[in-house]
Amino acid sequence: MTTLAEARHRAAALDAIDPLRRHRERFTLPDGVAYFDGNSLGALTTAARAAVAEVVDGPWGTGLIRSWKEAGWMTLAQRTGDRIAPLVGAAPGTVVACDSTSVNVYKTLTAAVRLRPGRTRLLVDADDFPTDLYVARSVAEQHGLELVAAPAAELAGLLDERVAVLTATHVDYRSARVLPLDALTVRAHDVGALVVWDLAHTAGALPVDLAGAAVDFAIGCGYKYLNGGPGAPAFVYVAPSLVADAHQPLSGWFGHADPFAFSTGYAPAPGVERFLSGTTGVLGMTALHAALTAFEDTTMEVVRTKSTSLTSLFVELAIEVLVPRGYRLASPIDATERGSHVALGHADGEAVLAHLQAAGILADFRPPDLLRFGFAPLYNTHTEVVLLAEALATA
Amino acid sequence: MTTLAEARHRAAALDAIDPLRRHRERFTLPDGVAYFDGNSLGALTTAARAAVAEVVDGPWGTGLIRSWKEAGWMTLAQRTGDRIAPLVGAAPGTVVACDSTSVNVYKTLTAAVRLRPGRTRLLVDADDFPTDLYVARSVAEQHGLELVAAPAAELAGLLDERVAVLTATHVDYRSARVLPLDALTVRAHDVGALVVWDLAHTAGALPVDLAGAAVDFAIGCGYKYLNGGPGAPAFVYVAPSLVADAHQPLSGWFGHADPFAFSTGYAPAPGVERFLSGTTGVLGMTALHAALTAFEDTTMEVVRTKSTSLTSLFVELAIEVLVPRGYRLASPIDATERGSHVALGHADGEAVLAHLQAAGILADFRPPDLLRFGFAPLYNTHTEVVLLAEALATA
Repeated sequence: MTTLAEARHRAAALDAIDPLRRHRERFTLPDGVAYFDGNSLGALTTAARAAVAEVVDGPWGTGLIRSWKEAGWMTLAQRTGDRIAPLVGAAPGTVVACDSTSVNVYKTLTAAVRLRPGRTRLLVDADDFPTDLYVARSVAEQHGLELVAAPAAELAGLLDERVAVLTATHVDYRSARVLPLDALTVRAHDVGALVVWDLAHTAGALPVDLAGAAVDFAIGCGYKYLNGGPGAPAFVYVAPSLVADAHQPLSGWFGHADPFAFSTGYAPAPGVERFLSGTTGVLGMTALHAALTAFEDTTMEVVRTKSTSLTSLFVELAIEVLVPRGYRLASPIDATERGSHVALGHADGEAVLAHLQAAGILADFRPPDLLRFGFAPLYNTHTEVVLLAEALATA
Repeated sequence: MTTLAEARHRAAALDAIDPLRRHRERFTLPDGVAYFDGNSLGALTTAARAAVAEVVDGPWGTGLIRSWKEAGWMTLAQRTGDRIAPLVGAAPGTVVACDSTSVNVYKTLTAAVRLRPGRTRLLVDADDFPTDLYVARSVAEQHGLELVAAPAAELAGLLDERVAVLTATHVDYRSARVLPLDALTVRAHDVGALVVWDLAHTAGALPVDLAGAAVDFAIGCGYKYLNGGPGAPAFVYVAPSLVADAHQPLSGWFGHADPFAFSTGYAPAPGVERFLSGTTGVLGMTALHAALTAFEDTTMEVVRTKSTSLTSLFVELAIEVLVPRGYRLASPIDATERGSHVALGHADGEAVLAHLQAAGILADFRPPDLLRFGFAPLYNTHTEVVLLAEALATA
């Protein structure tokens, strides 16, 4: 049986050989805090901190209007997308950063259902994050589609010729269960449906091969494992084979082929830029663009290995030390089926969370009874994992 | 006849009694630059600069996830809206800041046309800013409406029982001509149509009385005269009498009545918060929220008087000094018909702009031949106006 003391030694040894131990130095983590909520709001990088200060004083305060050209703001959404692309298995020029995840769900779902006229169903994971469900319902209503919400395990069986689009989140926001993105995409294509994958809990934590899996559309969040800051811009991926025929309804001027021609007719940009809408929010985008440098000098495979090591240690301690104390493991035991967070059920979950917070340990709570612990591979350590288990054991 | 030397003396006298001369100190304007593009990107305030630095280091870097509650981020969109409300004649709780102008045009136009089922036309100012035209066309197509784009002078005559919604921008982005917002709103209501006013070149420059004029919906820009920073969040106003029945399609979780209940069904917030969609972009919103303090200690009437004084001086010099040199006045002579910028046509407009920029004078150019000069009442001076006229006379 694993004791916490034994785990502490093992954690120290794992941290000593962690290939990402220098990456932690790229973050400015507060003293006295162990942070397990990078799955909800990623930590601050020194790069983002410096970039925001610089853009305020320089390009905004001094460059002023000139900076749209001279500081490259006109292409900041594309250049930020190009930094996200390798993290999600996408080619350069196939990802843009923009708007919020909710808005991007709307854009991609609408573009997708427009590509499948005559079909009658929009299929969605019933346990998807609420905003995805809300927006999917809105899109279904606008297009006269039946919204079919089903548990993840039933999605494959519901894919038939009636389905225009399947949308789901790759990693469940509560349980961290990883859905079979490749298999569901193949199955959807087999029946002529398109897929829109939400990578909110994937990007920056797990490798995914959007191009290799022939995913049609994907969207994701900039403020979780990508560390872009609170409410950071989200992102959109569109398969190159589809983009010329993909039309999203938020046809703002930044998605135009030539925004500064100020023409009265809308001509969408040829590539994924057509999924841009209004003027790029430069401050937030600058933070995200800079934060992405934290992923330099490693690969998503290394990041995933570290993630698995962190969550596996926690799951082991949870089973041996915490379940006997009234916690319930609400995430998969098999690491290959698990994203980068672990959820524990507890009857007094919110009280436990408050106890942790008083001890400088930050996590979050999702109804009905789930404590969620995010393990950010770039900055969390195995030693912190043991600290967390100890605090939970004594809560 | 006004000479430039005489104008310099007059400008100095006007600046000496300018009730907003201390407001200029709230901005960090670059040395050696005269800035006439606050209508495109407002200048940096010391308040925004400090607030952004503070939110990065404190609430993001140190507070982390706790800051959604403890730093008030959950209500930042509403609180920012409440600072915009008095600038546009709106009651507290009827404005939210969010997303981009383009996205907000889409939300409000969609909500408006949904309130007028059975009608067949969406009426728009043909000279509106392109993004408004693009989005209006998209909304019209989605709802099977005929998009009728007509010159501003013809809009009143085209309002009849076929029109679901009229949308136009209060101040034309090229000519600065002010449309008769009150009269067009009355006329629209007379035939049972709704109005969506774009206040992009109004908010922070001209008073407008949304509540008094019984405007249904309005949207506006955060990065022009409101000085919120490049790509700052925009805003949405909805009349209190309409909001309970107004349904926008970007039904993201921040527009939900209780976002953190994580319920699977969408229940819109009772008030204007239902026009929020995804997670608030905190960095950009923080800058806008802080920048709005620049409007403290004055009224929009004082701002308008200063604006009129600046543009009238420039128009006078343009007529007397610049028109004889090959410039064409492309804005109204009557100050009551003019917003806070002035446009001059010139055959070599782009070359003139480059000449100005080399002299440290920043403005912008809009096709086909228009030089645009924005006069931001909070920081531009009459002395700068004369400097601009001198530079144009010698270009």
